[in-house]
Amino acid sequence: MSHDQTEIKNLFEPRSVAVIGASHNSAKIGYKVLENIVRGGFGGKVYPINPKGGEILGVSVKKGWDEIEGSVDVACTCVPSKFAFEAVKAAADHGTKFNLVITSGFSEVGNIEEEKRLTAYATDHGMRILGPNIFGMYSAAASVDATFGPGGIKAGSVAIITQSGALGLAMIGKTAVENIGISALVSVGNKADIDEADLLSYLVDDPNTRSILMYIEGVRDGHHLVEVLTEVTPKKPVVVIKSGRSARGAMAAASHTGSLAGSDAVFDAIMRQCGVLRAESIEEAFNLCKFLSDTSVPRGENTVIVTNGGGIGVLATDACEKYNVKLFDDHEQLHEVFSKATPDFGSTKNPIDLTGGATSADYWEALKAARDHERIDSVLALYCETAVFDADNLKAMIRENSEQFKQAGKPLLFSVFGGAMSEEAVGSLTKERVPVFGDVYETVACLGGLYSYYRHLKDRSETVDEAEIDVAAIEEVIQGARADRRGFLLAHEGQRLMDAAGIALPASTVARTIDEAVAFAEKAGYPVVLKIVSRDILHKSDAGGVALDLENRDEVVDAYQAIMRSCRERVPDARITGIEVSEMVRAGVELIVGARRDASFGPIVMFGLGGIYVEVMKDVTFRAVPLNRAEAIEMMKEIRAYPLLLGVRGEERKDIPCVVDTIIRLATIIRKCEGISDIEVNPLVVYEQGQGARAVDVRVMLSSAEGGRSHA
Amino acid sequence: MSHDQTEIKNLFEPRSVAVIGASHNSAKIGYKVLENIVRGGFGGKVYPINPKGGEILGVSVKKGWDEIEGSVDVACTCVPSKFAFEAVKAAADHGTKFNLVITSGFSEVGNIEEEKRLTAYATDHGMRILGPNIFGMYSAAASVDATFGPGGIKAGSVAIITQSGALGLAMIGKTAVENIGISALVSVGNKADIDEADLLSYLVDDPNTRSILMYIEGVRDGHHLVEVLTEVTPKKPVVVIKSGRSARGAMAAASHTGSLAGSDAVFDAIMRQCGVLRAESIEEAFNLCKFLSDTSVPRGENTVIVTNGGGIGVLATDACEKYNVKLFDDHEQLHEVFSKATPDFGSTKNPIDLTGGATSADYWEALKAARDHERIDSVLALYCETAVFDADNLKAMIRENSEQFKQAGKPLLFSVFGGAMSEEAVGSLTKERVPVFGDVYETVACLGGLYSYYRHLKDRSETVDEAEIDVAAIEEVIQGARADRRGFLLAHEGQRLMDAAGIALPASTVARTIDEAVAFAEKAGYPVVLKIVSRDILHKSDAGGVALDLENRDEVVDAYQAIMRSCRERVPDARITGIEVSEMVRAGVELIVGARRDASFGPIVMFGLGGIYVEVMKDVTFRAVPLNRAEAIEMMKEIRAYPLLLGVRGEERKDIPCVVDTIIRLATIIRKCEGISDIEVNPLVVYEQGQGARAVDVRVMLSSAEGGRSHA
Repeated sequence: MSHDQTEIKNLFEPRSVAVIGASHNSAKIGYKVLENIVRGGFGGKVYPINPKGGEILGVSVKKGWDEIEGSVDVACTCVPSKFAFEAVKAAADHGTKFNLVITSGFSEVGNIEEEKRLTAYATDHGMRILGPNIFGMYSAAASVDATFGPGGIKAGSVAIITQSGALGLAMIGKTAVENIGISALVSVGNKADIDEADLLSYLVDDPNTRSILMYIEGVRDGHHLVEVLTEVTPKKPVVVIKSGRSARGAMAAASHTGSLAGSDAVFDAIMRQCGVLRAESIEEAFNLCKFLSDTSVPRGENTVIVTNGGGIGVLATDACEKYNVKLFDDHEQLHEVFSKATPDFGSTKNPIDLTGGATSADYWEALKAARDHERIDSVLALYCETAVFDADNLKAMIRENSEQFKQAGKPLLFSVFGGAMSEEAVGSLTKERVPVFGDVYETVACLGGLYSYYRHLKDRSETVDEAEIDVAAIEEVIQGARADRRGFLLAHEGQRLMDAAGIALPASTVARTIDEAVAFAEKAGYPVVLKIVSRDILHKSDAGGVALDLENRDEVVDAYQAIMRSCRERVPDARITGIEVSEMVRAGVELIVGARRDASFGPIVMFGLGGIYVEVMKDVTFRAVPLNRAEAIEMMKEIRAYPLLLGVRGEERKDIPCVVDTIIRLATIIRKCEGISDIEVNPLVVYEQGQGARAVDVRVMLSSAEGGRSHA
Repeated sequence: MSHDQTEIKNLFEPRSVAVIGASHNSAKIGYKVLENIVRGGFGGKVYPINPKGGEILGVSVKKGWDEIEGSVDVACTCVPSKFAFEAVKAAADHGTKFNLVITSGFSEVGNIEEEKRLTAYATDHGMRILGPNIFGMYSAAASVDATFGPGGIKAGSVAIITQSGALGLAMIGKTAVENIGISALVSVGNKADIDEADLLSYLVDDPNTRSILMYIEGVRDGHHLVEVLTEVTPKKPVVVIKSGRSARGAMAAASHTGSLAGSDAVFDAIMRQCGVLRAESIEEAFNLCKFLSDTSVPRGENTVIVTNGGGIGVLATDACEKYNVKLFDDHEQLHEVFSKATPDFGSTKNPIDLTGGATSADYWEALKAARDHERIDSVLALYCETAVFDADNLKAMIRENSEQFKQAGKPLLFSVFGGAMSEEAVGSLTKERVPVFGDVYETVACLGGLYSYYRHLKDRSETVDEAEIDVAAIEEVIQGARADRRGFLLAHEGQRLMDAAGIALPASTVARTIDEAVAFAEKAGYPVVLKIVSRDILHKSDAGGVALDLENRDEVVDAYQAIMRSCRERVPDARITGIEVSEMVRAGVELIVGARRDASFGPIVMFGLGGIYVEVMKDVTFRAVPLNRAEAIEMMKEIRAYPLLLGVRGEERKDIPCVVDTIIRLATIIRKCEGISDIEVNPLVVYEQGQGARAVDVRVMLSSAEGGRSHA
């Protein structure tokens, strides 16, 4: 456990809480927070602070910090913004460890300076700030509800971190209705100091927390967030809702909290890299958190659908494809397992169709068979209300099977569709935390989320792959460009950089004789391109100084002579250095590979389909750096054009290892060379397996500051 | 009203109903159907038929058809499948107009012959069959519930047509719970005779029906369905759930009903063409139907979001982009309208943020301002539960504003998120048919559906565009290939077909002299390609018979002579017809355009990005034929690569009218030339505006039957 984690424990498990601006007026936030702390059953010391003194809710009020003995773990600042700095200062001076600055009126309304001043003072005096502009926080570990919410939070296993106050407050009621117990609920507001990563470093080891839900509008220190998430997700699932995913939504988020939403494509890909599940809507996020909190990870990917309606079985099958849930399809085995439970006119193919005549006994039989079979790992049970089914047994059948599957460590999800009786069953069983849903897609989305998490646990690796690159040589190139007061590299500097990084550009040399030209062409392989090299010839083609697509020795000899003759004729005084002979880049699949420092996430790599399609198809993906080869391969699989690399229409498989290598090399450059802010190889032309790839063009931008931004 | 429609009226508004196989045993379907008819309040004559006679549910039972005077409008066949043919025969012989064959055990279990026999007999005797393998049907127009469902269907404005029995039966309960009134509920089962199109031809003019929901697994006569839908959607919205959209789902559908799911991409695009809204889940479909049934189409696309939470406002903004709901963004105007209702630290930019301090009075004020403003066309009102809000007024505020907006002809949708009070408000208001939802995405999806329908109404056109093509010449080409016993066209036949259709291939001629070659090249434009034409020279390149990329007169002259010399030297006895001179196809954007006879929908056209990307990116779309230019342009806008045609990265706009023209020409061919089953131009290379396009390669397949399939 790091120092940070030890420290943050005091926030979630305070021994003492002070309310600065505690109020006698029950309409005020300063009253409400105190009321929730007192009524919520907090066992530690509570210090309401108000110069007026007296007593509120039976607790004696301190007139100032001097009346409090010893330091306080958590203070809640509830005073108006104009008094906030003084309140924060006094708390810090008294040695308070954490300050929940509930007060609003800071950066979210443009008052950035005051927020900085307040935070700086706190930081300098060893006090950490949550907020400002928050509704407070709740922690089940200490039974402390230091929020101005409606109270009555039920302790449980889902931790919630929210950047939106209104949503967070409304979640208190919503979770109560849905019987979702909360281990912690933290409003992060403007994130002037404490952010999601800090909070996660506690939640990762909090025994109360079984799943984590985050509502995020903007990420500031994404690099740190990625580091922490990488530690959290192997231990417990994290679900994130990130609003501002659309262009217009990002604008709205900016005007709402002043936070920069950043590129949604980058956020999305990096969350996937971290094994975080992304939910679009709050409903989806709640469903996932609840389900993941209650369900153990399955042993394998063989899912079986059991249904009494063919139509709904087909819908579920569609949904399984959408949410990447794999259906068990060993038909022989399926027949063996399910033939007893299935009438002749039903189906033992997956979906298992018990037909509209099925009773609870038929479900029992089919589900038991699925539960007992070692090759079946999870089950979707669908029920369309029928007159034949013994409805009185519906709830018991669902409840008991769910319990038995839980004990067997196999996920079982029910989807129930029908009238009042079905609705009631869904409603009441949901409140018992039995995984039962009304809509088939909703059901399968939950299982899909679980399998996505399962795959992350299975495939993740802590390996970091780096390439050997000549950092010193690259730094030299950068220094050269800086000396020239440029923020970018010129073509030959880009070439030197690529050489130093071990990325293959088209081979080339400057030949001074025909023999040299021929020797190089023979070595590099035909076809080659010849170009005059002379500082006096700007327009090479006009001077007859270029010859393309030379396919053999004779053509090189002829072209060499023709170029020399033509250039001497047309630019008689030209000083000719020689003739550049370059490997001609054959056609192949054009890709784009890049690396840059993202405003939210720091160093990242990018990969996609190159050429004109980058812009139009936006078929690109991202990863945070550092990464390993397996992650680079995952990136490649994510783009729609991936089949082009596997070979389609009789074409051969492309040199995927070489592309992976290029991604790792660029990742290494952006990680080790802080002077570089952006490097893009476009196109990277990749050939058949074993034949490598060529970086045809490279564009390099330098960081504006001398040493670049640090992401240590 | 067509003959079909007059006739189908008897199905929905029967004056008499017979139940064949009416049973005294209340556990039997033959009892249940009779019970629903009797208890459902049907006002016409009811004839239970059972050889045993007697009385069931107070209705006297007929021992046979001879006891029934006059013909019957609707008979329900409830006997076991082995007696079904005889039952159907007897009904038909008695002049019965419609027979709902509830009995199962036909094509859905492979018993295709019996289904055909039964249907053929009925058809020959003027009786139409619904089913077999159905649960019956309900029609509010005649208060007739001829199903074996649970009864108690509530009359209302949503018509449902379902191919799944279990789902349809469960919908009876589900609609009751959700207070969705039904105008008709029809189970189509195996669709041996009556299909969706037949039923729609009644529903289009049924005054009870305000929206139509269809659950479809497979389409048989899609061409007819498209014709009917094209008439229906301008009058009332149609929502369709099509299962089997995934590959695996399609397999499941095939094994379930024996119906072929067909290509989902084709179905999806053609439904869009018809103005049908496609829902993925049943929940989404119900939401849409209910909402569209209750809401009038807005006057324009300016939507405003009013919220008391910034975070939920951002989520709604994201959802608006996803569901293509356009946010009003005249900030000056917005400020004018909403500044009074919005506190200073709120926002009058869209979303209008009333802030967490908002009360019902603030909502009233903001909503009234939106309602009164002529440029605001629809409103999304979001509410996060807060302690400040006067919760007692929540329901009245929502209900009354909804009513007033309804009267103003402006859609207003609420999204309410919070605890028990909010849940209760959503639940009870939903039952009152007030458009209020719990989830933001669900809310916006409904408004998005309405706007999708709005745009269809606004943009649709009944125009059919056809090209002038030389059908006789094309038929001649087809006859030639048939005489040769081929099912496809050879290259030169394809060229003749394209000439006859007026689609530009690269210009070419066979020159017999140098002068002819030069004259053609001068006319067609350089560069050109020369190729030897000789039946004795198979490998033209080997014989030196090919010259590419000839850029001027001199090069053509040299190449002509060189080819002749080389061919005469290398194949001395060759009979040389001449040299083919062809325009060389310049690089441009490669597209694919095709037309074919689809198994479900008959003649359709296809358009997409060409080259290797067709397979990998699957960036193609479809339309049913006939179509008009506007629809062809819509097709082009649908593909992801569309920006390539508009010009990206400084490139010029491409010749879109020429591509539209090619689509229309292929549509005309497939419509008029029944001998052709499939025609594909790949690639169609399109150039800058005004510079046309070239069909580089064309592949034509012929229909297997002599005259092709008829889709008159």
